[in-house]
Amino acid sequence: MALPISPLAPARFPDLPPVAGARLAAHACGIRYQARTDVCLIELIRGTAVAGVLTRSLTASAPVLWCRKALKGGRARAIVVNAGNANAFTGAAGEDSVARVVEATAAQLGCRRPEVLIASTGVIGEPLPHDRVVDALAALHAGLAEDGWAAAARAIMTTDTYPKGDTRRAEIDGVPVTINGIAKGSGMIAPDMATMLAFVVTDARIPAKTLQALLARGVDRSFNAITVDGDTSTSDTVLACATGRARHKRIAGAPGDRLLKGFRAALEDLLRDLAHQVVRDGEGARKFVTIRVAGAASRRAARRIGLAIANSPLFKTAVAGGDPNWGRVVMAVGKAGEKADRDRLAISMGGIEVARAGRVVPGYDEAPVARHMAGREILIEVDVGVGRGRATVWTCDLTHGYIDINADYRS
Amino acid sequence: MALPISPLAPARFPDLPPVAGARLAAHACGIRYQARTDVCLIELIRGTAVAGVLTRSLTASAPVLWCRKALKGGRARAIVVNAGNANAFTGAAGEDSVARVVEATAAQLGCRRPEVLIASTGVIGEPLPHDRVVDALAALHAGLAEDGWAAAARAIMTTDTYPKGDTRRAEIDGVPVTINGIAKGSGMIAPDMATMLAFVVTDARIPAKTLQALLARGVDRSFNAITVDGDTSTSDTVLACATGRARHKRIAGAPGDRLLKGFRAALEDLLRDLAHQVVRDGEGARKFVTIRVAGAASRRAARRIGLAIANSPLFKTAVAGGDPNWGRVVMAVGKAGEKADRDRLAISMGGIEVARAGRVVPGYDEAPVARHMAGREILIEVDVGVGRGRATVWTCDLTHGYIDINADYRS
Repeated sequence: MALPISPLAPARFPDLPPVAGARLAAHACGIRYQARTDVCLIELIRGTAVAGVLTRSLTASAPVLWCRKALKGGRARAIVVNAGNANAFTGAAGEDSVARVVEATAAQLGCRRPEVLIASTGVIGEPLPHDRVVDALAALHAGLAEDGWAAAARAIMTTDTYPKGDTRRAEIDGVPVTINGIAKGSGMIAPDMATMLAFVVTDARIPAKTLQALLARGVDRSFNAITVDGDTSTSDTVLACATGRARHKRIAGAPGDRLLKGFRAALEDLLRDLAHQVVRDGEGARKFVTIRVAGAASRRAARRIGLAIANSPLFKTAVAGGDPNWGRVVMAVGKAGEKADRDRLAISMGGIEVARAGRVVPGYDEAPVARHMAGREILIEVDVGVGRGRATVWTCDLTHGYIDINADYRS
Repeated sequence: MALPISPLAPARFPDLPPVAGARLAAHACGIRYQARTDVCLIELIRGTAVAGVLTRSLTASAPVLWCRKALKGGRARAIVVNAGNANAFTGAAGEDSVARVVEATAAQLGCRRPEVLIASTGVIGEPLPHDRVVDALAALHAGLAEDGWAAAARAIMTTDTYPKGDTRRAEIDGVPVTINGIAKGSGMIAPDMATMLAFVVTDARIPAKTLQALLARGVDRSFNAITVDGDTSTSDTVLACATGRARHKRIAGAPGDRLLKGFRAALEDLLRDLAHQVVRDGEGARKFVTIRVAGAASRRAARRIGLAIANSPLFKTAVAGGDPNWGRVVMAVGKAGEKADRDRLAISMGGIEVARAGRVVPGYDEAPVARHMAGREILIEVDVGVGRGRATVWTCDLTHGYIDINADYRS
């Protein structure tokens, strides 16, 4: 089943410039899909630092378990990604599959095994036909190119309706650096596609520990602040690589380093952009929703409240229906389990205040709010009236499309 | 919009016998609905003990705040319930409305104000037209009858598709006692109907503190173990009243009292029955799902895992589609945040084992599992392989009906 392209998709895939020290290739090895690429190789130059943020799922996939170990070394020479099979819930066979792909890749590239990172996305519970991946490595290696970004973004799609990627520039110590990123979202048909993957590569010279701190902070404010349906994948993986080819001064190490200010902002901006692209391709999504929470006890509390709203089926269906149903926002704030003052709660929709001091505003006129809710880009602002914690989360609406995609019996 | 009766509804409303010391009446006072009853009065004889379990929502409604205070006295003479307006998020006006209804009821019945309990269900954020309730009190009082149970169950419905109630018998010290209960579930159209209410009345002689302990335990294993969409109402209220008219020996006080064994079991059975009736009328529900979790670190952990499965939109849509998609069960276990051993995880559907020791069973035959999933009553069993904690939760599927009901713009 080919899904129609999301109405929230960007007009086209952006031009991603080369990143010195990184080459990419894609290949069709027929794991699950016919007539499309489904495996990609990202080759990284010797000395590339790597950082990663992985799913917290307790039923994490075999590739996630491998990355968790391999990331400890802080170095990467290759990332191999396949679509169509998540290699999750596959027991010892799954770990064996990872070992074989890692071993073959290390041999092909002449690097150490812990320098090979793996990500898989697709069906849960079926053994990965790893021989097909192994057999593709020679062709992938031969096809490596600096301009392979769009091809790689396409090869990691499952039921995504468009490829996702973007680029940013920053300066470190006056020297320009590039940050490229590609991502895939969740699209689930048969039997269980559910993985968010993102890969970011920069030519900046940043030690692995610093990169890890920057990535963790960035992911916290981007991928960890989005939700389509509140369901956490067994395979979520975000990896960031720094090839170190840019000729700026070596960074001392602290992620707060003044020299990293611009880079940090550009990285966070890129991660947020990629995260938004994932939401805009959420299953059945027809509206993109920004939820800003203020006045919470802490940033963490603000985010929990935001996610309680963003994951509420009642709120999400109201958005789908273009219904300015602020009562459902009240309900979601109440169930979030974080401190809130009912009598200080204020809610705006599309910048128009609808409730203040714990009740609807005097003379409330629903018409302009309804017009906002009828649009594609929805803004909800909530002040819970107890502190100074703020957070923003992003989600999409819950539509018949979601049910169609996920309730279809596998044929 | 009149919704079709849920395909999971019981054949008819059961015969509820009188409970000595309790009389009921219903009336149409036109709060929101036309041509139907929308307010009910439950009158309780002097000396009736009362216990309650109320929503934990931090945006609780004015009636919930009142009940929280009034329950401290442990005595009730009246419960007044209206449908059509939740009196939630109504600020000081909402508290004033409660005060007026309480005062008028206390005057009508000649009792103290803290002996009057209030529950409201319906629209959030609109002032309750409390005069209509106050004006109905004389007619309600005049109409009180011991056989008013079915009428009361109908009067508290919002967009429920059928009235909910049932009865149990037990013996205390050889003396038969009766326990009646009525409940309503959530049905949301406009703008925000979302309340689970249940009222239980027995003629047993049980002190309020003991009744509270019995009710808390029973609710924990019934209403707190069901979910339709994971959204917690601002108004959830369960009240239990013991009129003390049965002529058994006075109960010492401890809820674990040997004499209460049969009563405890009957009460829990009734609460579970009412909770199931709420799930069977879940919005858009076409299948009733029982999820049994075993092998968890604790009972609490087992329940959290069960609810993670029951609230997963991916799992619920798979059930809607009759899809034996056990990968989504694995995913939900992984995201629950409770201890689980991926490599010991076992899953059965309809009593047929599908996964064991962290992978699909050898020679798995999907056909009989698919037949089970095509039915109306679905059983999912999960053993997470780390301890002895067990829990059962109940839910329904997520269908187009849910979207239709909740995404419809209010007209």
